[in-house]
Amino acid sequence: MEKIIKLINEGKYTETRNELIKLNVVDIAQFLSELEEDKSLIVFRLLPKEIAAEVFSYMSSEQQRYIIESITDREIKGIIDELFMDDTVDLLEEMPANVVKKILKNIGEQERKIINQLLMYPDYSAGSLMTIEYVDLRKEMTVGEAIRHIRETAIDKETIDVCYVTDNNRKLEGAVSIRKLILSDEAALVKDLMETNIVSIHTHMDQEEIADLFKKYDLLVMPVVDKENRLVGIITIDDIVDIIEQENTEDFHVMAAMQPSEEEYLKTRVVKLAKNRVLWLLVLMISSTFTGYIIRRFNDVLQSVVVLAAYIPMLMDTSGNAGSQSATMVIRGLALNELKLNDILRVIWKEFRVSLIVGAVLTIVNFLRIYLIEGTDLNISAVVCMSLFITVILAKVIGGSLPIIAKKLRLDPAIMASPFITTIVDAIVLSTYFTLATWLLHI
Amino acid sequence: MEKIIKLINEGKYTETRNELIKLNVVDIAQFLSELEEDKSLIVFRLLPKEIAAEVFSYMSSEQQRYIIESITDREIKGIIDELFMDDTVDLLEEMPANVVKKILKNIGEQERKIINQLLMYPDYSAGSLMTIEYVDLRKEMTVGEAIRHIRETAIDKETIDVCYVTDNNRKLEGAVSIRKLILSDEAALVKDLMETNIVSIHTHMDQEEIADLFKKYDLLVMPVVDKENRLVGIITIDDIVDIIEQENTEDFHVMAAMQPSEEEYLKTRVVKLAKNRVLWLLVLMISSTFTGYIIRRFNDVLQSVVVLAAYIPMLMDTSGNAGSQSATMVIRGLALNELKLNDILRVIWKEFRVSLIVGAVLTIVNFLRIYLIEGTDLNISAVVCMSLFITVILAKVIGGSLPIIAKKLRLDPAIMASPFITTIVDAIVLSTYFTLATWLLHI
Repeated sequence: MEKIIKLINEGKYTETRNELIKLNVVDIAQFLSELEEDKSLIVFRLLPKEIAAEVFSYMSSEQQRYIIESITDREIKGIIDELFMDDTVDLLEEMPANVVKKILKNIGEQERKIINQLLMYPDYSAGSLMTIEYVDLRKEMTVGEAIRHIRETAIDKETIDVCYVTDNNRKLEGAVSIRKLILSDEAALVKDLMETNIVSIHTHMDQEEIADLFKKYDLLVMPVVDKENRLVGIITIDDIVDIIEQENTEDFHVMAAMQPSEEEYLKTRVVKLAKNRVLWLLVLMISSTFTGYIIRRFNDVLQSVVVLAAYIPMLMDTSGNAGSQSATMVIRGLALNELKLNDILRVIWKEFRVSLIVGAVLTIVNFLRIYLIEGTDLNISAVVCMSLFITVILAKVIGGSLPIIAKKLRLDPAIMASPFITTIVDAIVLSTYFTLATWLLHI
Repeated sequence: MEKIIKLINEGKYTETRNELIKLNVVDIAQFLSELEEDKSLIVFRLLPKEIAAEVFSYMSSEQQRYIIESITDREIKGIIDELFMDDTVDLLEEMPANVVKKILKNIGEQERKIINQLLMYPDYSAGSLMTIEYVDLRKEMTVGEAIRHIRETAIDKETIDVCYVTDNNRKLEGAVSIRKLILSDEAALVKDLMETNIVSIHTHMDQEEIADLFKKYDLLVMPVVDKENRLVGIITIDDIVDIIEQENTEDFHVMAAMQPSEEEYLKTRVVKLAKNRVLWLLVLMISSTFTGYIIRRFNDVLQSVVVLAAYIPMLMDTSGNAGSQSATMVIRGLALNELKLNDILRVIWKEFRVSLIVGAVLTIVNFLRIYLIEGTDLNISAVVCMSLFITVILAKVIGGSLPIIAKKLRLDPAIMASPFITTIVDAIVLSTYFTLATWLLHI
């Protein structure tokens, strides 16, 4: 890399170009992102046309914007022609109006129509993810004809690994892999080779569902069809990998009580980050006020045995952690489709048994520590330990069942993670603790 | 499905078979898992040999074990011959000793040698993930010769989408896609078509790193080489999708203070679940005891102004949540390689500014509520609000920096999530709160 920077600084552009094209396009894009803007433009212009378009598709949207704003219409046309339709659509969705205008100006009439259609699909739907550059065959073709057809058209296609077979009305009839074609006799008919029980995606299917299908069937590419089962596009697994990470990021964010965001952390503005976080913090802050009321109701108890306060953090934290462990297991199980809604009773029964073991271990260790080691009063030790045991059980059962209930109510189960569970569990912990204290300490 | 079950119950096996083979192999495997064991065996035996092996590879290990234990040696050989080497290795790794013996007995001498080699690679390394069924070409071949070679050998290969070019010593020299071969002239030389700047994986590379490479370069398949750059296998993206979900599950588990586990929730035994959870709960319970000591140290303060206790849950929860939001953002950023170790100062500066905004909003709302609405004493309101503001800032800065520090120390950053951060933040909250109370309330 340093070598290339040196070449650029010395103005040796031919050598720079020769060094650059030895690199992978992803690395070239990354290299450009580390240069100053004007230099990155010079270097970008050195790249051969096909490589330039590929490098362009791996750039950040800020960089893409800068490039589009700086180059000529002819150069724009050169890049857009080389891009796959789904990348063009992504680009248009992320650019400001003036840049969009500049791009659209350089796209042919027919392509513009298709792009407008693609732009109309809802975000995160199959329609907005798919690309229309697929190979389609007819079932009457022989293998020889099919391969010739692929040779003639494949140059523009995103993948030729799987070719789709359609009828005159573009209805999807089957799929055949390039591997099968190559391995078969030239005279064989596509009809006899194609698979007909193919899993397809509807244009309006959500990206999470699409990713689940790809995972379930271990596929590299899937066809997208409209309501009339007409083939309209394909989705390839490289986009699915990104979606899986996006969906996971969303879960992580929601589980930490934040508005999910797709932007990179360092690139997100401070105000935006604050906005994504403050709402849930407010809701949870106000909820935990009610927990405060419980303490206030038992002020007399606390006043007479003030040492009780010392165990509040331990009880709150331990039960909260126990509950969020269960919630996390269940949220993850739901996300991976390992758990279904009607598993709720099995989950509750499992969590109950787990919590008996976990609760018993924690309670015993706690008793040893506060009664035997610290020499706390036996009655107080008993109150603390009984509270701990009861609340660990309740926390685990509640933590395990709330995500499933949330999903039943068509809410995101991830909401029922640590912060929310903690708030609920806190109220239970304090009520249990002070009620037991009132009874057992005869206050 | 009900139709097929009806056919089975009526003993109409030919019809059952004909209905089954219309289904996708994944669906057949799922269907079998829903049948009683003896019935699933009958149905499994109805399947044609090639389909049976594919269905087998999608079964759970319990089912695979049952099948292997129930069928004849000849049938086992039939299945194993059809399996890809990486699936066979996975199978052997998961079966108990007696089943392994039964399988190995039915594998040829030469294959057994290769399998033993594959079994020796460390878990989660490229060597244990790769398959050895790849197409290799020589650079002197013409496209025509290459395609002929592929046709002759492709039947057993896991993928032919990318073919690798090696020299006489099996050293990796390049890669060429089947697409490029098909689109090129028959007489062209592989040498002139192949790409030479290929990204490859070393046999001992960890699966997480491998997944990162796949994501970075948007690849469908990657070559695995040994220390001498000799091609020893390939890894395909369908395995990577599973790894990505595994790595995410691991992060979710660790972030909720559990030993990570790959087993499905409902299939994990209660004792195992309890074991995975109790250790961290114990550690955190004992840590939060120290938080209790802080309260005990300030017993006099609490005794004279017992109402202070009512705000402890709100302060602890809000700061804990604020801290775990930041920790989650940073842990996720690190996992996606969006954040690097030397970004720590940028993160701290960003979290500081975010926390000023978030802290201010929370403090104002809190002040309105406890002073204006609830009519709490002004001094006490001031103590609560100041504590809130200060601890939100500290929580966010600590939450944002600890995961990076953990990674610097070669620990898993995910450890520094909610439970751990909460415990640290709790101690800070209580110290701040009671110290401020002592000063401002002149106790």
